[in-house]
Amino acid sequence: MSTAYQLDLSTDVLALTRALVDAPSVSGSEEPLADAVEAALRGLGGLEVERVGNSVLARTSLDRDTRVVLAGHLDTVPIADNVPSRLDEATGRLYGCGTSDMKSGDAVMLRLAARFGVPGAEPAHDLTFVFYDNEEVDSSLNGLGRVARERRGWLYGDLAILLEPTDGQIEGGCQGTLRAVLEVKGVRAHSARSWLGSNAVHGAAGILATLAGYRAREVDIDGCLYREGLNAVRITGGVAGNVVPDECSVTVNFRYAPDRDEDAAEAHVREVFAEAIAAGVTLTVVDNAGGALPGLSEPAAAAFVEAVGTPARAKLGWTDVARFAAFGIPAVNYGPGDPNLAHTREEHVVVAGLQPAEDALVAYLSRSAR
Amino acid sequence: MSTAYQLDLSTDVLALTRALVDAPSVSGSEEPLADAVEAALRGLGGLEVERVGNSVLARTSLDRDTRVVLAGHLDTVPIADNVPSRLDEATGRLYGCGTSDMKSGDAVMLRLAARFGVPGAEPAHDLTFVFYDNEEVDSSLNGLGRVARERRGWLYGDLAILLEPTDGQIEGGCQGTLRAVLEVKGVRAHSARSWLGSNAVHGAAGILATLAGYRAREVDIDGCLYREGLNAVRITGGVAGNVVPDECSVTVNFRYAPDRDEDAAEAHVREVFAEAIAAGVTLTVVDNAGGALPGLSEPAAAAFVEAVGTPARAKLGWTDVARFAAFGIPAVNYGPGDPNLAHTREEHVVVAGLQPAEDALVAYLSRSAR
Repeated sequence: MSTAYQLDLSTDVLALTRALVDAPSVSGSEEPLADAVEAALRGLGGLEVERVGNSVLARTSLDRDTRVVLAGHLDTVPIADNVPSRLDEATGRLYGCGTSDMKSGDAVMLRLAARFGVPGAEPAHDLTFVFYDNEEVDSSLNGLGRVARERRGWLYGDLAILLEPTDGQIEGGCQGTLRAVLEVKGVRAHSARSWLGSNAVHGAAGILATLAGYRAREVDIDGCLYREGLNAVRITGGVAGNVVPDECSVTVNFRYAPDRDEDAAEAHVREVFAEAIAAGVTLTVVDNAGGALPGLSEPAAAAFVEAVGTPARAKLGWTDVARFAAFGIPAVNYGPGDPNLAHTREEHVVVAGLQPAEDALVAYLSRSAR
Repeated sequence: MSTAYQLDLSTDVLALTRALVDAPSVSGSEEPLADAVEAALRGLGGLEVERVGNSVLARTSLDRDTRVVLAGHLDTVPIADNVPSRLDEATGRLYGCGTSDMKSGDAVMLRLAARFGVPGAEPAHDLTFVFYDNEEVDSSLNGLGRVARERRGWLYGDLAILLEPTDGQIEGGCQGTLRAVLEVKGVRAHSARSWLGSNAVHGAAGILATLAGYRAREVDIDGCLYREGLNAVRITGGVAGNVVPDECSVTVNFRYAPDRDEDAAEAHVREVFAEAIAAGVTLTVVDNAGGALPGLSEPAAAAFVEAVGTPARAKLGWTDVARFAAFGIPAVNYGPGDPNLAHTREEHVVVAGLQPAEDALVAYLSRSAR
């Protein structure tokens, strides 16, 4: 198979990260990189490989009692003058689009495939590798979602590890996210005769007061502290400079701990705004994605936490681990990048964090091999 | 002088209104109509006529003790499938763009010019007619403003009557209008970790509560009841669906009675929002146009009120009478159209209101002629 890029999986994780960053793969244009990943995995000789769109699936079939799924997306946000990669020796940082989110994680996965996906390798668990496309764009395009719909069996396992950037910490599960639009209605009028109208922006005062006074819950699950939040993320109202507005719209985003499911989250938001709703405000849920419980009491997950050697913490942002949780599979986030650098022009990964991430996973996947 | 349109000032006020409506003159394209008005006025023989851009000025010089200025704009808002005019006999309405705002008023002015601007006429007061352009667009383009800057002497008089639509009622003076933008600052953060940020939209809660609880003042001046109002006319905030907004902007419009000048109006608004300002909100006045006192105790104005025969009321919207008030000239609004129909697709004027408006002005301008 001839591909635009060649990946040498025998190089170290830093060199492999650079090679991945230097093969641009903004969402929607992952094909050349997916081709290279597919060719490299097929070349290992110990993996069953399948292609779904620009997602690449590979797995061992060693008849182990347990299976661990490793997943990472191949795409990046748009490049911001930060490709090719640039290694800053002084600070020990590798700069470039995708260094943190999440080609360093992909590189770790490829290194694991090179170690455990060859004939004669003896991993402790059967392994599945999922490299997928279109994570940084609309959820309907998400490659992992497509695999879940079209090749569900490929995702089954005892633990899923998503190599999104977590600074080398295990982050269990993820919080859910709900977006709702509150619409306040009024009556339009000329602002010189405002008493003939009813100002919808003024009518939103109670909603903002509720938001400003909201006390978010904190919940401990499996030792992970989830911290919720309810925020206005958008407000719009206004017709013209001399018109009393007849509409005001407030979009709120509720980030909720994974002990609430989607229905419970919606019920909570409706309860919070019960007074406004009773006064005629309409609340429409426009987006609601449930979270994922950390599942750290499951043996496969507990063993992973032990192998990494630091306590797991809660994942607060919504991530694709929820797609595994939907099948009842415990799932954690664990990757070498810094999540706070994702999507920034200054995106980089600390080089010193790369090898330890690979080593921790090697240790976990090697332990008690039979 | 050859013009695209010919105006026959000897026809009645309805026919003249139709002729004006059927000569489209959306702001910026008044020239053909201004040409026709200029030609008609010059043809009368008893007026000094001057042209300033697409404004047409005309006046008698009969050495009367008093001078009355009649003013009306020639332009209209954009046509909305409502030109040419359409007379609905059943309802007695003349439909069309400008019928109400304010070609019916212009027609009354032209009829008065035809009566009093001819050799041998004996009006009670010297008369000045100001037909001006660009009233419906940005204030910097306003033809009356240009005349005030370039031909100030043409505007002097003992009373100015602006023939804007008032449904045949005298509306004294006008209210002032101030627009200010309140900017709330916050700190941007991912909404999954909202406690790292500070939500600027939530920070606007106090501003909206102040607006919702504001009690507007009512003031009686010269028997006219001015009713103030303070309204949010626009609110915007929001970065993305997963970001705590770091900016929220509320634009407020304060409509104030003419006993406050511009500085007093601004001081009041700053006082109303003192708490928010103390908390770091910035308030910027972006627009402030003072109102006009009704001046109805002035003899020339009182005589006009008597001639019309119904009590004057307050003008609540800001109008160009304020440009006369700036020179200390009492100014009232009086015209046959319905102000509520201005700028609507269904704009019309009640035919039965046209002749009485002309008659009342004829009576006023004829009284105690020497």
